[in-house]
Amino acid sequence: MKTSKSLINESVFTIPEELNDSKNIDQFLSSNKNKPVVVVQGLGFVGSVMSLVCANSLKNEYAVIGVDLPTEESYWKICSINEGTFPIVSSDKKVEAYYKKSIKKNNFYATFDDYAYQKADIIIVDINLDVKKDSTDLNHLTGYDVDLSSFKKAIRTIGQNCKENILVLIETTVPPGSSEIAYQILSDEMKNRGLDTKKLFVGHSYERVMPGPNYINSIQNFYRVYSGINEESATKVKEFLKTIISTEKYPLTKLKNTNSTELSKVLENSFRAMNISFINEWSRFAEVAGVDLYEVIEAIRMRPTHKNIMLPGIGVGGYCLTKDPLLASWSKQNIFSSSEPLLMSEQAVKTNDRMPEMAYYFMRSFFKKSLKGKNILLLGVSYLPDVGDTRYSPVELFYKYLIREECNVFLHDPFVSIWSEMNEEISNDLSCLENDLDIVVISTGHSFYKSNEFIKILERKKELFILDTVGLLSEEDINKLSTIHKIKVLGRGDL
Amino acid sequence: MKTSKSLINESVFTIPEELNDSKNIDQFLSSNKNKPVVVVQGLGFVGSVMSLVCANSLKNEYAVIGVDLPTEESYWKICSINEGTFPIVSSDKKVEAYYKKSIKKNNFYATFDDYAYQKADIIIVDINLDVKKDSTDLNHLTGYDVDLSSFKKAIRTIGQNCKENILVLIETTVPPGSSEIAYQILSDEMKNRGLDTKKLFVGHSYERVMPGPNYINSIQNFYRVYSGINEESATKVKEFLKTIISTEKYPLTKLKNTNSTELSKVLENSFRAMNISFINEWSRFAEVAGVDLYEVIEAIRMRPTHKNIMLPGIGVGGYCLTKDPLLASWSKQNIFSSSEPLLMSEQAVKTNDRMPEMAYYFMRSFFKKSLKGKNILLLGVSYLPDVGDTRYSPVELFYKYLIREECNVFLHDPFVSIWSEMNEEISNDLSCLENDLDIVVISTGHSFYKSNEFIKILERKKELFILDTVGLLSEEDINKLSTIHKIKVLGRGDL
Repeated sequence: MKTSKSLINESVFTIPEELNDSKNIDQFLSSNKNKPVVVVQGLGFVGSVMSLVCANSLKNEYAVIGVDLPTEESYWKICSINEGTFPIVSSDKKVEAYYKKSIKKNNFYATFDDYAYQKADIIIVDINLDVKKDSTDLNHLTGYDVDLSSFKKAIRTIGQNCKENILVLIETTVPPGSSEIAYQILSDEMKNRGLDTKKLFVGHSYERVMPGPNYINSIQNFYRVYSGINEESATKVKEFLKTIISTEKYPLTKLKNTNSTELSKVLENSFRAMNISFINEWSRFAEVAGVDLYEVIEAIRMRPTHKNIMLPGIGVGGYCLTKDPLLASWSKQNIFSSSEPLLMSEQAVKTNDRMPEMAYYFMRSFFKKSLKGKNILLLGVSYLPDVGDTRYSPVELFYKYLIREECNVFLHDPFVSIWSEMNEEISNDLSCLENDLDIVVISTGHSFYKSNEFIKILERKKELFILDTVGLLSEEDINKLSTIHKIKVLGRGDL
Repeated sequence: MKTSKSLINESVFTIPEELNDSKNIDQFLSSNKNKPVVVVQGLGFVGSVMSLVCANSLKNEYAVIGVDLPTEESYWKICSINEGTFPIVSSDKKVEAYYKKSIKKNNFYATFDDYAYQKADIIIVDINLDVKKDSTDLNHLTGYDVDLSSFKKAIRTIGQNCKENILVLIETTVPPGSSEIAYQILSDEMKNRGLDTKKLFVGHSYERVMPGPNYINSIQNFYRVYSGINEESATKVKEFLKTIISTEKYPLTKLKNTNSTELSKVLENSFRAMNISFINEWSRFAEVAGVDLYEVIEAIRMRPTHKNIMLPGIGVGGYCLTKDPLLASWSKQNIFSSSEPLLMSEQAVKTNDRMPEMAYYFMRSFFKKSLKGKNILLLGVSYLPDVGDTRYSPVELFYKYLIREECNVFLHDPFVSIWSEMNEEISNDLSCLENDLDIVVISTGHSFYKSNEFIKILERKKELFILDTVGLLSEEDINKLSTIHKIKVLGRGDL
């Protein structure tokens, strides 16, 4: 008997042996008659919230079915949605409000049964597509690979079930070229079933979802880029997007083909990843030259041509920037048969993956002896300020370095209770500060850590070494605290 | 008898044997009594125009003396200024207007005599500081070096001549750490002469000069960053800058020390260089994936966080972006004794230096046989649109590749008469189009090349291969021209 445990509460769900949910699906649809059926494939950070946005469409009444796999990792999300608890805790109040509205309207249902695809008018693909990174010695990237097989399998399932006149909209970040591959699979499967592939419409439009206080708005009120595998497909995508996005305020941009939108998405994220890796080496320069890089960047950003220059930091986290440059380089070589990788984009990921190590060595350089046995408090394990998202958090590697040196590490994060990647419980209250600490590291830029309340607590502690890895402390805070503590800021050599 | 030939007209000047100009300097100053004396060291692209801005100060009456060396390369500028011809031809009408005003007021004089430094209240250092690049096989960067000795010598000359209460403002782009070195030299020399070094003020404030239609404004109406070697120096710099820059509209930014402003300048330019090199590898990707990178970038720039993403192109030119990342990396290793270079910034220069080669190979890939004997017209040799500036122009390397393949190359540029680096005369009129051409390359984005007049001329030609390396042609132009010609655009694989 397999079970699936919720990540947001204590619930445990038994995965059924008999994988048939068609009765419930039919029942759901019978109470949503005449509404176009939107099926969202994948109930992760994008798919689950995309489902809410469709269920709360600005201009149409949709019946929305979210589909995920009946596995240990995912089954609980399906049950949770149907039992009245949205599977993501968010600081965006709209998330809960939209979910409640969908319950009231009874137009959102979740299932594991592929039968849902048979009923769909529109299918949105929001599954994950991962990069397998090879690394040695605490995250030094040595190689990577992309395996398209689970993406292809998910697409094939759609092709084996969908009806004619279906629009398949791929939102997953994929290696450029993948939508064309998906179109081929869908056509083949429809032909096998004697269906007319002229009535198959495939498009690509990438999301720019940002978990956090603007979670819903990052879908509903933001610019979108789209394309179709042919003109009719592009038109269908446009018509659909107009019903869920405020396109009057955020006009849609059509690109010429699906390769273009796919490339656009990974380029966007590679641009950010590149600029982070770029400023990282300048942080090291600023540290040796006695320069406050924060002050310098503020001066440079006055130039409109330089607004996007990034700030120093502990590293890059999340699901996108850590892998998208590799997806791109893999595609160039493996789908478009180029012998040249995207060298600088690959190097950006390599450098970024090592940023937490550099932060660790920066801290390390102020201590003559080993840090063994030191009591160290990490403030924040999430990769984003004021959000509880620990996916690929850079704090992970920093933490591993401390553990390797046999430090006693205490963890605090107001937005995280369980650090699932490290299997650690996280303190949400300030009791962790009552320990006899040697070092305090600001590892996430949560605004709480620059509140007067928190600064006052630090002021009351006996001498500490405080490392600010994200430039959170103001000049005023630093002046106050440095009368008692030794303060160092990553990317600043002037203290 | 040595001579110095003007680069802007036919004048040739004999360099005097007796290098004494003190009488003329005294005479100039006697007719500018009670005015503070500003001496500008170096009459290149920055110093000469900086002199004009000082002579046309917004809030003060200065007597301005420009100093350059009595060498073959520079002596003609001194004579030219004093004889009524400004040594730079510019599309900015303010340049000529400011020069004429300074003649009328008789408050701008040029000399080679160090005696000028004895009379100065303010000395602005605008000399060049070059990077020596080693390369093999048509610009593949294999190494580089920086030689501070001529910078140090120029500073020493000031220290050997200046009086007390002098402000030395360094504007030259230098390896971070150089102003501190300069301060040491100036102090030593003043001490040698028994002067009080408490009355020596040294600061650094970098220019953001952009030759072209906004030449003067890029000094007078733009943001400035400054610093001083100590507080009094910083204050003196600020007071001076306020008299030449519209600081109400473009407030000054003070940084904590001279290392910071020096680092800021090379960081600014490295940011641009890096982002150009980054998009360069994506151009190659777009070409193989059938993607129009211009269209993609336009879509991406809708995001405020991605406004600074760059466009594809033939390469990087000019005096700054081609060397500043190397100045920075050199400083980190040689002035601050770091064992780590700025790897990605160095790589950016390496990649950018190869961009014209990549443009050449892109063109080459559309021809099965050698290009030997083909008649090829290059439209533009300047590195900037609508400006006649050929310093380190990327067109140079592209041209060399064509010559190596024994093509017959014709050159056109409305803004350049003599390509001094290549020792070639450039056609300013359209007679070059009367040749029996095989290939036309748009190598500079001069707006003339997208004018209706010019497109019509191209329409009348028999079939050509047209390569647009800078994305100048509109979609409409391409549609028109492609009925007759074969068109390819760098960074676009969709044509």
